Amino acid sequence: MTYHSGRHFLQIPGPTNVPDRVLRAIDAPTIDHRGPDFARLGAEVLEGLKPVFGTRGPVVIYPASGTGAWEAALVNTLSAGDRVLMFETGQFATLWKQLAERLGLEVELLPGDWRSGVDVAQVEARLAEDREGAIKAVCAVHNETSTGVTSDIPGLRRAMDRADHGALLLVDTISSLGSIEYRHDDWGVDVTVAGSQKGLMLPPGLSFNAVSEKALAASKQAGLPRSYWRWDEMLGPNARGFFPYTPATNLLYGLREALAMLQEEGLEQVFARHARHGEATRRAVQAWGLEVLCRNPAEHSNSLTAVLMPEGQSADALRQTILERFDMSLGAGLGRLADKVFRIGHLGDFNDLTLAGTLSGVEMGLGLAGVPHQRGGVQAALGHLAETSGT
Amino acid sequence: MTYHSGRHFLQIPGPTNVPDRVLRAIDAPTIDHRGPDFARLGAEVLEGLKPVFGTRGPVVIYPASGTGAWEAALVNTLSAGDRVLMFETGQFATLWKQLAERLGLEVELLPGDWRSGVDVAQVEARLAEDREGAIKAVCAVHNETSTGVTSDIPGLRRAMDRADHGALLLVDTISSLGSIEYRHDDWGVDVTVAGSQKGLMLPPGLSFNAVSEKALAASKQAGLPRSYWRWDEMLGPNARGFFPYTPATNLLYGLREALAMLQEEGLEQVFARHARHGEATRRAVQAWGLEVLCRNPAEHSNSLTAVLMPEGQSADALRQTILERFDMSLGAGLGRLADKVFRIGHLGDFNDLTLAGTLSGVEMGLGLAGVPHQRGGVQAALGHLAETSGT
Amino acid sequence: MTYHSGRHFLQIPGPTNVPDRVLRAIDAPTIDHRGPDFARLGAEVLEGLKPVFGTRGPVVIYPASGTGAWEAALVNTLSAGDRVLMFETGQFATLWKQLAERLGLEVELLPGDWRSGVDVAQVEARLAEDREGAIKAVCAVHNETSTGVTSDIPGLRRAMDRADHGALLLVDTISSLGSIEYRHDDWGVDVTVAGSQKGLMLPPGLSFNAVSEKALAASKQAGLPRSYWRWDEMLGPNARGFFPYTPATNLLYGLREALAMLQEEGLEQVFARHARHGEATRRAVQAWGLEVLCRNPAEHSNSLTAVLMPEGQSADALRQTILERFDMSLGAGLGRLADKVFRIGHLGDFNDLTLAGTLSGVEMGLGLAGVPHQRGGVQAALGHLAETSGT
Amino acid sequence: MTYHSGRHFLQIPGPTNVPDRVLRAIDAPTIDHRGPDFARLGAEVLEGLKPVFGTRGPVVIYPASGTGAWEAALVNTLSAGDRVLMFETGQFATLWKQLAERLGLEVELLPGDWRSGVDVAQVEARLAEDREGAIKAVCAVHNETSTGVTSDIPGLRRAMDRADHGALLLVDTISSLGSIEYRHDDWGVDVTVAGSQKGLMLPPGLSFNAVSEKALAASKQAGLPRSYWRWDEMLGPNARGFFPYTPATNLLYGLREALAMLQEEGLEQVFARHARHGEATRRAVQAWGLEVLCRNPAEHSNSLTAVLMPEGQSADALRQTILERFDMSLGAGLGRLADKVFRIGHLGDFNDLTLAGTLSGVEMGLGLAGVPHQRGGVQAALGHLAETSGT
Repeated sequence: MTYHSGRHFLQIPGPTNVPDRVLRAIDAPTIDHRGPDFARLGAEVLEGLKPVFGTRGPVVIYPASGTGAWEAALVNTLSAGDRVLMFETGQFATLWKQLAERLGLEVELLPGDWRSGVDVAQVEARLAEDREGAIKAVCAVHNETSTGVTSDIPGLRRAMDRADHGALLLVDTISSLGSIEYRHDDWGVDVTVAGSQKGLMLPPGLSFNAVSEKALAASKQAGLPRSYWRWDEMLGPNARGFFPYTPATNLLYGLREALAMLQEEGLEQVFARHARHGEATRRAVQAWGLEVLCRNPAEHSNSLTAVLMPEGQSADALRQTILERFDMSLGAGLGRLADKVFRIGHLGDFNDLTLAGTLSGVEMGLGLAGVPHQRGGVQAALGHLAETSGT
Repeated sequence: MTYHSGRHFLQIPGPTNVPDRVLRAIDAPTIDHRGPDFARLGAEVLEGLKPVFGTRGPVVIYPASGTGAWEAALVNTLSAGDRVLMFETGQFATLWKQLAERLGLEVELLPGDWRSGVDVAQVEARLAEDREGAIKAVCAVHNETSTGVTSDIPGLRRAMDRADHGALLLVDTISSLGSIEYRHDDWGVDVTVAGSQKGLMLPPGLSFNAVSEKALAASKQAGLPRSYWRWDEMLGPNARGFFPYTPATNLLYGLREALAMLQEEGLEQVFARHARHGEATRRAVQAWGLEVLCRNPAEHSNSLTAVLMPEGQSADALRQTILERFDMSLGAGLGRLADKVFRIGHLGDFNDLTLAGTLSGVEMGLGLAGVPHQRGGVQAALGHLAETSGT
Repeated sequence: MTYHSGRHFLQIPGPTNVPDRVLRAIDAPTIDHRGPDFARLGAEVLEGLKPVFGTRGPVVIYPASGTGAWEAALVNTLSAGDRVLMFETGQFATLWKQLAERLGLEVELLPGDWRSGVDVAQVEARLAEDREGAIKAVCAVHNETSTGVTSDIPGLRRAMDRADHGALLLVDTISSLGSIEYRHDDWGVDVTVAGSQKGLMLPPGLSFNAVSEKALAASKQAGLPRSYWRWDEMLGPNARGFFPYTPATNLLYGLREALAMLQEEGLEQVFARHARHGEATRRAVQAWGLEVLCRNPAEHSNSLTAVLMPEGQSADALRQTILERFDMSLGAGLGRLADKVFRIGHLGDFNDLTLAGTLSGVEMGLGLAGVPHQRGGVQAALGHLAETSGT
Repeated sequence: MTYHSGRHFLQIPGPTNVPDRVLRAIDAPTIDHRGPDFARLGAEVLEGLKPVFGTRGPVVIYPASGTGAWEAALVNTLSAGDRVLMFETGQFATLWKQLAERLGLEVELLPGDWRSGVDVAQVEARLAEDREGAIKAVCAVHNETSTGVTSDIPGLRRAMDRADHGALLLVDTISSLGSIEYRHDDWGVDVTVAGSQKGLMLPPGLSFNAVSEKALAASKQAGLPRSYWRWDEMLGPNARGFFPYTPATNLLYGLREALAMLQEEGLEQVFARHARHGEATRRAVQAWGLEVLCRNPAEHSNSLTAVLMPEGQSADALRQTILERFDMSLGAGLGRLADKVFRIGHLGDFNDLTLAGTLSGVEMGLGLAGVPHQRGGVQAALGHLAETSGT
């Protein structure tokens, strides 16, 4: 194994670089999850999560990966055979669909090209057709981690409203929460699904459901079998800062610290930072003469950028070169995009110089791997960063 | 809040005192869960777990609490309406039953007095009756954390064999694995359920299923809806050190370190240590003139001791006194034992002097809380510890 | 090497058990020692140390062991050939004398029996004789770490005043500061010498001089060559939170945290805690039928207890037994006390149950090593701790 | 205070970015410095340092800053009034001279322009004149941290040999050891002075003297008063892994880890890495149209680069801009170079992408601070890095 000096650059689109403050919080001794110190911790994180989701309602915390929170959103609100409407924005939308089917739901998937967000007009049309209300839930991925495309959730909400359809709105914000503006309450979302390891700057191992009153009401009727994921079991003890089964205490320490950091920086500033870094990255890609996967500038993700390889070039070979030479991890193309794109994560605890290092690694890697491109991507990014610095 | 100097004594029966080596391992930077460094980590822990479970078969690792691994054991092997046989050994058996029912299983619970282990003869009789094989699984808690009673799993296996019954045997070892001898393969267990936060000396957040070939075969037929917990999805990527969804990487770092520690000490030595500490604790209880909840000496747990309060005395008041005065957390009585017992955890990363401190805290607390008792418990425990030291 | 489970008991009289909060503070990334963040850190610790020394004057922080701060106290205030008066309270007084002689000072050592503190009357008599003021400094060890004897510093000051002698008063508080009451200003001390690794709960590597105005004035005339230890070079940059050469930044992080902890507990409470633990320890020694080295109860140290072995018994053999069997480090007899005493440290970040574990280890060790004693020491200590708990 | 997301870039020429492995090692619990575990630690680091210094002789470890090791080198080998020859290579040479004078030595300083290394011919001439051997020591700074100039120590040795002069050769390697090739034995150095916080990748707080046999012999005759710094007191206990007074145990944990890292990477590779990064940095400076302070390419430092500001431009204003906008610390101009140069540290635990980020911060800062320059420095550096990657 080659020795790598200095810090690894973890520039996949999550897990992100966990800040030292969070790592140091996590390594404190575990405490009694039924004692008074825990109650304070629990109350603090349960309350502190709300503004991050943009909600005044409850947020449920699972000791689980984000995939678990997907499952939780479905099993708490739906019954076997229920119809749900999903959109093929990319790999994660596809996996969520597969999960839903395994749970016994009927998934109707509106096809997509993996380069675009949810087609709001198409949704509106489909819901308008559904006179009898067969569709019980609309499931959308806010930020497709496999493609770097952000869908218009407020637009989706308005489309559902225009169609006057009563389906629940379930949204996956795994790679957007804490990075890209999101408002659970204002946007009329019923269940927001999130994970710890991206904008929340934690290691993986926690996931979340923010829950609207409508979703809570639905959960009283929902027939899918469930136990671990039950909201009702959570909400009771949560009111006193506790959990129905042993929580992942040390990750909750990290969550407390991460929430403090988001509050110190300010959410508006966090979103603005991600927007600057997204734009700088896209300018680099453009300068290299490469193509950003996302077709529509209005849908560009600010937390990651997927870059299309020139015809005949292997994204995985490029990533391998960059990993070996420059000790940087980039995201692979997933599913049908395998080997065709690489993904640059620019989310979480991140700053201008680390982005500069990241893009430098890509630019040098392109050269070393023999991928046709123009130099100057880093220079273009620096131009944007300098110009907008301090704003 | 009172300031407490020195280290907190976390003497609940888990989570246990996480050793510094494990805490320091956990706080290393998160890495790419699809990269080569992760593959080595994954392979190492998946392999390293096997001897701890006493198995050569696969062990599935969930980013979840132990409760999740209970659910996983059931949803992977059973179908809606299946009958399972359980034993009311205490609160955790009762909770597992409730979980099973929520998933749509038919649970037949053999009643118990919360002071004894599984009645093996009763099981044999019940299974013998079940000519048509309606019972699909027998579920037992190896070490009841609510009572401090260890059930005879090899005996249970032999009873099932004598009854010539084909039910699966599912065993919860959450508070015994890594503390009390356990042999998944030799004892013919089909699914072993475990968690990270007890004998494995980790913070909570990981749980496990060790899976027999018979259980694996059953999972091909099992009809309960499942996705997050699917074994088949796990086993594929596990073969290369990977996981189907984002694993709790930092807890896996801790697991690697904990497995190294168990190996350094040697499992036989680990079990012997717990046995010495269990015996020393029981001698203290006896010297105080109090009663150990577990009725049968052959079933005494070596990982925790539940102590019955004298009539009319509040266990919770005692625990509160001890917490405030001596900064030690003890386990509460659960369910029907609420306020009637307190539980002393003596498992995980632990030693003679910490046990002496623990029992000293109990003895002083008994006095301060006005609980009728005789002094001399600590002295009795020290006698046993000194006598058996170095063995 | 034997594997030891659980936490090591570090019950030497320093370095003490460093609390997790301090260890976690120390491992934060090093920062620019000339930047604004450092200036805040420097100002905070320089100011925060003052109440701990009981002074409003400056405290100089050295990146050095306590031995360095001994040297600093001398080279800043004295000239080659100056006469200093010292007291043979034990090994550390003897080492300080040796150090002074190496620097070219004339040391007059009042002999002692290594079981008593400074004989104040003798000092008064000696100073009264010194009409011409040949004695330039009186050097005393507040708490002799080798013997567990605390000298009466206010009494020493009064004796100097009665003798109307102008010598400087230099006091070593290495094993008393932050554990036993100490007042640099009120007691008229000119230089107080301290280290980080005892009552201040830090790892070793920092040491201190608290400096009176009289000492500062003396330093303008003092002729011993010096550079690293110069107060004047320190005080200038200290005023802005900086240091003249690279400071031990990470230990300063720990110092900040340790000062916060002392403030949270409250110094009065810290002293009371050490007094309780000292008394409980002495009761244990008495119950064992062994002898505390310190002859005079008014001089008993509250930070450590040196215990005399019965005639013909080896303290080092006992310590070895305890280290191997119970993973506890005790202090050895030093110098002329080698193998004749063992020393129990009960200072720093410590509590009742850890003391109970400590004394349990000693009691079991006495038995295993075949040292004649009576049982019941732990019991006696618990009696005192319970009785005075919550006071 | 502005919130800065992501990691701070600590690009001063030391303290350097302490790697996580070292920080995690440092925060382990402090142990008994007279016990068997410590003896192993002590022996390991004392032995492990030798190849880093290129010596088979002893290396003394002080709990002190590098300034202390300067003092130690002098007080152990010289007597009051001894003449030493020094070279004005920059600020640190000047400070060492001041220190020597404070200790009572007669310093003869060969003047320099702060842009060049030691003038070997001049030394030879001066020593040749010194027929009676009045000069007892020649003191040189291997790598001037204030200027980024590396002196030719083997050349200096040869000059001394040609002059057939018996003076001791004392060399400061504070900012070169572990970064730039150095051979204490082969180059005939008598005392090598080093510190922990640069190429050794530790926090500040440890410093070192590597000692030749000739130096050791000199120390028997040397008359300067000394105690804390005495080699003889160190070498006795060092033979068994111990120290004469309490060592900075936790920093020694870090040293053990840092030595392991240097060994894993390989010293030759470490030096090559620093050379690549030095060259890339100089290419950036050149592309910006700025001037490297060091006049002679053969003397370019590979651990840091001092950059001259264009006439009339403030280096401190530039550094302030970069600190505020990009959260990067650069080194200030010291002494007569104040505000005229800034210094880029590229030493210690470092890699290509972090260097790219560093240079990006400088390039953007030059623009934002209005310093006349050409763009393209980062691009030039990337060119060199890519070209030499994997070599």
